[in-house]
Amino acid sequence: LTNSYTAKHQHLRYNPLRDSWVLVSAHRMKRPWKGQVEKPPEENIPRHDPNNPLCPLSTRANGEVNPEYDSTFLFDNDFPALQPDAPDPGSNYHPLFQAKAARGICKVMCFHPWSDITLPLMQPGEIRKVIDKWAELIEELGSTYPWVQIFENRGAMMGCSNPHPHCQIWASSFLPNEPALAERCQREYLRKHGEAMLLRYARMEAQAQERVVVENEHWLVVVPYWATWPFQTLLLPRRHVLRFPDLTSQERDSLASIMKRLLTKYDNLFEVSFPYSMGWHGAPTGTHLEEDMNHWQLHAHYYPPLLRSATVRKFMVGYEMLAQEQRDLTPEQVSPAAAEPLKIMDHYDYHFEQYGP
Amino acid sequence: LTNSYTAKHQHLRYNPLRDSWVLVSAHRMKRPWKGQVEKPPEENIPRHDPNNPLCPLSTRANGEVNPEYDSTFLFDNDFPALQPDAPDPGSNYHPLFQAKAARGICKVMCFHPWSDITLPLMQPGEIRKVIDKWAELIEELGSTYPWVQIFENRGAMMGCSNPHPHCQIWASSFLPNEPALAERCQREYLRKHGEAMLLRYARMEAQAQERVVVENEHWLVVVPYWATWPFQTLLLPRRHVLRFPDLTSQERDSLASIMKRLLTKYDNLFEVSFPYSMGWHGAPTGTHLEEDMNHWQLHAHYYPPLLRSATVRKFMVGYEMLAQEQRDLTPEQVSPAAAEPLKIMDHYDYHFEQYGP
Ligand SMILES: O=P(O)(O)O[C@H]1O[C@H](CO)[C@@H](O)[C@H](O)[C@H]1O
Ligand SMILES: O=P(O)(O)O[C@H]1O[C@H](CO)[C@@H](O)[C@H](O)[C@H]1O
Repeated sequence: LTNSYTAKHQHLRYNPLRDSWVLVSAHRMKRPWKGQVEKPPEENIPRHDPNNPLCPLSTRANGEVNPEYDSTFLFDNDFPALQPDAPDPGSNYHPLFQAKAARGICKVMCFHPWSDITLPLMQPGEIRKVIDKWAELIEELGSTYPWVQIFENRGAMMGCSNPHPHCQIWASSFLPNEPALAERCQREYLRKHGEAMLLRYARMEAQAQERVVVENEHWLVVVPYWATWPFQTLLLPRRHVLRFPDLTSQERDSLASIMKRLLTKYDNLFEVSFPYSMGWHGAPTGTHLEEDMNHWQLHAHYYPPLLRSATVRKFMVGYEMLAQEQRDLTPEQVSPAAAEPLKIMDHYDYHFEQYGP
Repeated sequence: LTNSYTAKHQHLRYNPLRDSWVLVSAHRMKRPWKGQVEKPPEENIPRHDPNNPLCPLSTRANGEVNPEYDSTFLFDNDFPALQPDAPDPGSNYHPLFQAKAARGICKVMCFHPWSDITLPLMQPGEIRKVIDKWAELIEELGSTYPWVQIFENRGAMMGCSNPHPHCQIWASSFLPNEPALAERCQREYLRKHGEAMLLRYARMEAQAQERVVVENEHWLVVVPYWATWPFQTLLLPRRHVLRFPDLTSQERDSLASIMKRLLTKYDNLFEVSFPYSMGWHGAPTGTHLEEDMNHWQLHAHYYPPLLRSATVRKFMVGYEMLAQEQRDLTPEQVSPAAAEPLKIMDHYDYHFEQYGP
């Protein structure tokens, strides 16, 4: 498949992690955009706001006072979608009206005591602390729960309701739809092809160098061949790693460094604090810890909504909701832009004066 | 499952049309919202704007001039995601890099010559003309294409880039992901239970009257048991109907009337022109016209994003994208609000003076 073909003709691409297809129609970027224009992210966030429940020393909804933390800070979500003690709904009276018990726990983790900082602006050493906490949480919650979802919604555009840098951790008594799909697809691939799917994929992408955004000794970031969001990326270890806590100390330092580079590149793209939802997928935990899970490869997905500029996003609406996801430019067209050399944005300079590059 | 259980305890519900689960956590509506606030829809849209390419007598991107149409108006999308003549990408060199040909046609249909009107404000006779055109299009494009997706993105919040009331019709040479899933699930249900899934479902909902929003002799609208969007609805015929063109003249009049009632109820909810994406799903066409498709039942999905008010929407982000869809209140909690008696909104009164109720 040549780039001159794909940039000219719409076609379908297969997503082997979701067993589904995406419609790629490069020529559609030519249409003028007269639709919704997004508010760019706020730039004047105060470093400390005593009324923000995520700040050090603030009082949260449940009356608790946050400690004067100086690194990461973890607490139970005050409005959890999952609680540990929901009773069983009982048996279902009809196949069209099926309910199942859902139990779990929802935590919030602040990355840093300052509200006016984001992961790419933090020092690698500070990011490393976030990484260690992630590993700890998957270890701890994964000892009983089959799935622990770590995710970050960054930016108001992605439904983030608090500007203070933070992520969430939702552990559940069930394997949710998306990891269940990834489980089935990776299992099937290993059975058919004798190798873990994403291990093979990373090797092929590293060799092709067509969709690589950033890489180092231990990690590789690509715009996947089947990306649906314009600047979607997939972060992969080069070594076979089943779960987050399996990462060595060296791999964690290396992850901190590649995350900083990837996220700075994102911010550079449209010179804005780049919104996204991201999250980690590793082999299921709980009782699955005892099972053979060699078909799994740890990875992180980044799903950023922006399409043309800081204020024009891709909408996944009518056709996408009812028929199939569709993208307006090819992964090969966006990868070079995403991979451009790092530059540091003017309005963030003061951070770098404080922290160094 | 009692409503006092479901309104108190999070649980999972099964979506039999998508073979997946939704996490229902009613108690989450209590959390304060400090996130993004949406712009309410513009209220002063001019009835006629000579620079709007969708208006009568306007010049479109390709240089064509629109006729002075006085009812519906159909034309080929000037920036189509699908074109009829894309060459085949050729054979795939690896299972992780699979591409397939995609051919098709994208059309746009204006509902009315005025820009400042929407479907719920149109007369039933005018809506009937839209319905007849839909039937004609499925008949015509469906004679060769296996799937014809009719959809409407209403409101800037749903990525609609032009305020003039219109829908789109994308016909494709392939069965997209969503209808492929609905095909598999409905086929399986008939095989197992000896009846078309949605026929059975409509009967049970009509009897339970717990999630019904509006109904008449031929149609039923419910907030489905497995709804993911807060005020999502499913529009179903009471009779077994495979495809849109099979609707009788009486059923079409009755559809115009129920659409007007449903959409007015939506507008009433937060006293705003209610945004949504909607679309029709019927049995696949093209070569499938010759096959036994009795497992299918025609239906329309309405996916509206609003959650709490005209300006606070539900975000399907981090957890939803990476793990599983999650809703903050139960379908039983929203159905009564959605079903409230019709009232006519003040700022739309002038339309009713023109048109009658
Ligand atoms: O075709 P439009 O109205 O310009 O575009 C809108 O609908 C399309 C089909 O759902 C989407 O792909 C676009 O992202 C959306 O903005
Ligand atoms: O938990 P938050 O940040 O208040 O809420 C945000 O993330 C959740 C998990 O993806 C979503 O369900 C919410 O719609 C979104 O606004």
